[in-house]
Amino acid sequence: MLIGKACRFVGRVRPFVVTPSACFFTSSNMAKSKFEYVRNFETDDTCLRNCYIVVRLDGRNFHKFAEQHKFTKPNDNRALGLMSRSAHSVMEELEDIVIAYGQSDEFSFVFKRTSTWFKRRASKLMTHVTSQFSSSYVFYWREFFGDQPLLFPPSFDGRVVLYPSNRNLRDYLSWRQADCHINNLYNTVFWTLVQKGGLTTVQAEDRLKGTLAADKNEILFSEFDINYNNESALHRKGTTLIWEKRDETVTKRMKLPDEEEKDVPVTRSRRRVQAYHCDIIGDEFWDKHPDILEDDDR
Amino acid sequence: MLIGKACRFVGRVRPFVVTPSACFFTSSNMAKSKFEYVRNFETDDTCLRNCYIVVRLDGRNFHKFAEQHKFTKPNDNRALGLMSRSAHSVMEELEDIVIAYGQSDEFSFVFKRTSTWFKRRASKLMTHVTSQFSSSYVFYWREFFGDQPLLFPPSFDGRVVLYPSNRNLRDYLSWRQADCHINNLYNTVFWTLVQKGGLTTVQAEDRLKGTLAADKNEILFSEFDINYNNESALHRKGTTLIWEKRDETVTKRMKLPDEEEKDVPVTRSRRRVQAYHCDIIGDEFWDKHPDILEDDDR
Amino acid sequence: MLIGKACRFVGRVRPFVVTPSACFFTSSNMAKSKFEYVRNFETDDTCLRNCYIVVRLDGRNFHKFAEQHKFTKPNDNRALGLMSRSAHSVMEELEDIVIAYGQSDEFSFVFKRTSTWFKRRASKLMTHVTSQFSSSYVFYWREFFGDQPLLFPPSFDGRVVLYPSNRNLRDYLSWRQADCHINNLYNTVFWTLVQKGGLTTVQAEDRLKGTLAADKNEILFSEFDINYNNESALHRKGTTLIWEKRDETVTKRMKLPDEEEKDVPVTRSRRRVQAYHCDIIGDEFWDKHPDILEDDDR
Amino acid sequence: MLIGKACRFVGRVRPFVVTPSACFFTSSNMAKSKFEYVRNFETDDTCLRNCYIVVRLDGRNFHKFAEQHKFTKPNDNRALGLMSRSAHSVMEELEDIVIAYGQSDEFSFVFKRTSTWFKRRASKLMTHVTSQFSSSYVFYWREFFGDQPLLFPPSFDGRVVLYPSNRNLRDYLSWRQADCHINNLYNTVFWTLVQKGGLTTVQAEDRLKGTLAADKNEILFSEFDINYNNESALHRKGTTLIWEKRDETVTKRMKLPDEEEKDVPVTRSRRRVQAYHCDIIGDEFWDKHPDILEDDDR
Repeated sequence: MLIGKACRFVGRVRPFVVTPSACFFTSSNMAKSKFEYVRNFETDDTCLRNCYIVVRLDGRNFHKFAEQHKFTKPNDNRALGLMSRSAHSVMEELEDIVIAYGQSDEFSFVFKRTSTWFKRRASKLMTHVTSQFSSSYVFYWREFFGDQPLLFPPSFDGRVVLYPSNRNLRDYLSWRQADCHINNLYNTVFWTLVQKGGLTTVQAEDRLKGTLAADKNEILFSEFDINYNNESALHRKGTTLIWEKRDETVTKRMKLPDEEEKDVPVTRSRRRVQAYHCDIIGDEFWDKHPDILEDDDR
Repeated sequence: MLIGKACRFVGRVRPFVVTPSACFFTSSNMAKSKFEYVRNFETDDTCLRNCYIVVRLDGRNFHKFAEQHKFTKPNDNRALGLMSRSAHSVMEELEDIVIAYGQSDEFSFVFKRTSTWFKRRASKLMTHVTSQFSSSYVFYWREFFGDQPLLFPPSFDGRVVLYPSNRNLRDYLSWRQADCHINNLYNTVFWTLVQKGGLTTVQAEDRLKGTLAADKNEILFSEFDINYNNESALHRKGTTLIWEKRDETVTKRMKLPDEEEKDVPVTRSRRRVQAYHCDIIGDEFWDKHPDILEDDDR
Repeated sequence: MLIGKACRFVGRVRPFVVTPSACFFTSSNMAKSKFEYVRNFETDDTCLRNCYIVVRLDGRNFHKFAEQHKFTKPNDNRALGLMSRSAHSVMEELEDIVIAYGQSDEFSFVFKRTSTWFKRRASKLMTHVTSQFSSSYVFYWREFFGDQPLLFPPSFDGRVVLYPSNRNLRDYLSWRQADCHINNLYNTVFWTLVQKGGLTTVQAEDRLKGTLAADKNEILFSEFDINYNNESALHRKGTTLIWEKRDETVTKRMKLPDEEEKDVPVTRSRRRVQAYHCDIIGDEFWDKHPDILEDDDR
Repeated sequence: MLIGKACRFVGRVRPFVVTPSACFFTSSNMAKSKFEYVRNFETDDTCLRNCYIVVRLDGRNFHKFAEQHKFTKPNDNRALGLMSRSAHSVMEELEDIVIAYGQSDEFSFVFKRTSTWFKRRASKLMTHVTSQFSSSYVFYWREFFGDQPLLFPPSFDGRVVLYPSNRNLRDYLSWRQADCHINNLYNTVFWTLVQKGGLTTVQAEDRLKGTLAADKNEILFSEFDINYNNESALHRKGTTLIWEKRDETVTKRMKLPDEEEKDVPVTRSRRRVQAYHCDIIGDEFWDKHPDILEDDDR
């Protein structure tokens, strides 16, 4: 089997036992270096400097996944919680993410403009985020779904988009939040018509055809006495994760000069991921958290 | 909260209840479309046609991961099995992968030349593979590690490389298998010196400094009576996954004309993923499986 | 003018003459290095290895250019000659072009698969080809148009396309030659109808609407006694440029031992650009010139 | 010639004249469409939105070109004038260039952030700039070099670089102007030492090894009575081209109601390219021309 050409990789056993495969052990490094030229087929996908790097994940076939795992409609808080928990895990494992925003089965992660993480290589950035998120989703499943089993490993796709200015980045996040609003309003009315109004899904769809946001809101209010603005902020606004510094007081055993050793309370600042379910389209959120964005003029 | 500028996204409840947020519901679609321009910042990363698309995954910080999960050395069969199981899952979920090769904490997946899966978009291809692999790794953990808990969600990075010819692709796979051989030979000797020879890891490292493959083989043979060629093929050659057609006989309840209904054995051809631990550098493997590669002249 | 901030770049004249611009001369290199970070915004556009690199040029607004310079219709041999002369100049100045094909106001240049010219950087390749072609077009104008002045500097755009296999490359060239044929047949009939048939351009256009190649050929033959196949090959087939080795005999003054110095004929092989106006879609051309393409299996 | 396979592209002449090439005319469009798939090998190279697009040109082998065309040293005003004239031509022919900066044998062209010229395709942008510049260089040669002949067509390479912020763009231009200063100071001293100081080029090189800007300035001042700051601004600062609006008064023949026809002076605003040889590193230039840059916050 190891005779002839194939021999180049198969070794003799001892020098004094000459076998046809004698060429192997002396040349494995040589052989490897002969093939190593294929490395040069890799291309450089470094992200342009001084741009925000956004990695967005989307669930693959999550409509079906939701059916199979009996997600409640129009929103399943366990599923949303698991998405946020996984996003949290991404932020803690990967450096330089300054803000993340998620809704439904998608999550966007924003790396700071000046990040040099993984030399700004797009493929490394997007695959690491996707990988950490996907493994976390399975890992933390039980925390949110308890004994309900995960039936198969889910999949997410990812992409990288660059935004050169603060305005562009904020418009990106506004776009995703506006999308959240439009979908959630629709889904809220749709499932209210079905669950409380007794319509079939086809009838509910017909009823909503061509309606504007105002019409949908009116249906909720006049027919079901629901004020959409009082609905859960988590559902209406999605989830925004940012880093916040908190002062923590811990007790340390210390010995000061001329004193006996004793427990001393020590305050230290710690960075933690904090979740918000608020409007991020207006200025208020950004005015309150001026450290998220870096200056354009740099 | 919704006063002023932010108001553009907040709706009135009913026409006769004038609220500061009156502007919202009539304009949410408008608002979304105002932001939608950010879509144009996405770039096209379509892979060049008529090239093999290789997605390679590597474990992130797997040295530490192996320590923390007490992987046996130099090879942990549970860990290798889990890698293959996850790769298997990738092949079954994603279309157009014709061959996959894995060793240690890495796995390469080869999409056929003519694949149009996900319109050949590099980011979709690499993130879907990475995601499916990562979630599978956690999902199937128990199958291989039983009650030993997974301590935290692991991460893999991915990349895409294109190969224009069969020769280039085979050289890529040869490169990875040559790498497997070199590393496994080194690790085998190293850990034999430590585990059986009583050397410290520093001493073992010193002993191996500057040695060639032949020298390492000689140490194994003369000092420990180990013929490297008899070591596990899984460790020496890694794992190659391909699709194979198998005839399966199943029993079907059928009713033929003028006969009573009865159980009839039916043979059908099914595609299954098959694992090999053999040399893929020489021609033998490729001659035996001529369907894996497509003709260059196309 | 050089006071204050701007001063950082403006020098004092002598150490003992203290001026506000004193900061300059000691810091110009420092200043330059402060700005040099902008270099990192350049991106790598290396072409995938083992692919043919095609650079195609197209004239910008050449319809108008042709009008203004009174090109004869449907083909102007002076203009076609100038295009070929310029392409010839590109092939002689730039390395690794194995074949070029041109028709109308376009020209394609094919770099060999293994070319490492300019490190395969797409931008360098396409701009150098475009630049050399454009400057040559003006430079050689007089050779083809004599005293008719060039009214303004013309412009060409360029692009790079990669082809992984010989089949793909030949199909690219076939595509361009099929395009040449279709356009030239149309133009030949159109201008014959106008110039010999007395139709207006609008009438000619109407007459040709919906006609197939066979119909056009029939018009030429039955109405104007023109057999299209006898028309100029330059117009029907375009221009193909390749390198050919020719033996040249030159006379050298030499002195052989025991002889007097005398003129000796010496034969040497020289590479020259050769033009063809033949079919390059079929196999014949390629069989005759087997050195143009490199083997796929490499 | 058209027999056999090649026949697929060669047409019959009339139905009753059977020729081997009978297959052609009915199928030329079909044939073309068969090859058209090669179009899909083109890749999209759209430049990221909201970034300045810089195209920089560099002369190829201009050291040699300068020798062969006997450029004066250290600066040849004819050559610099021709570079500016060609850049001027680029600005007038191509849209959306807001500023250009040149020195020695290089020129940079800056497209405005919001430009959609050529759909922001990098290859189109860089090749058109390079082409227009190159053809203009030959076209306007006589204007600057009179009867001294251009010996061969020169070549320039081009590249595209993106800058996301005004700061980045200004730093790019500062980098080029700092480069201009450093080179020109060196060349001025070097050629003064040779031309006035009687040193050989080797001696001049030795003399300047390791000298700082201050030292070079001192040599000029103390040995040759030259104050570098009084040297030509064109040489020290390079050439900056921008668009400026100028009011022009032209005379128009008009007939006003109840008056006889007469010549009336009419003022209209016209955009013209204006050249500067001033510092563009400090704020002064930019404060004076606030319209060149667009706001970062967009």
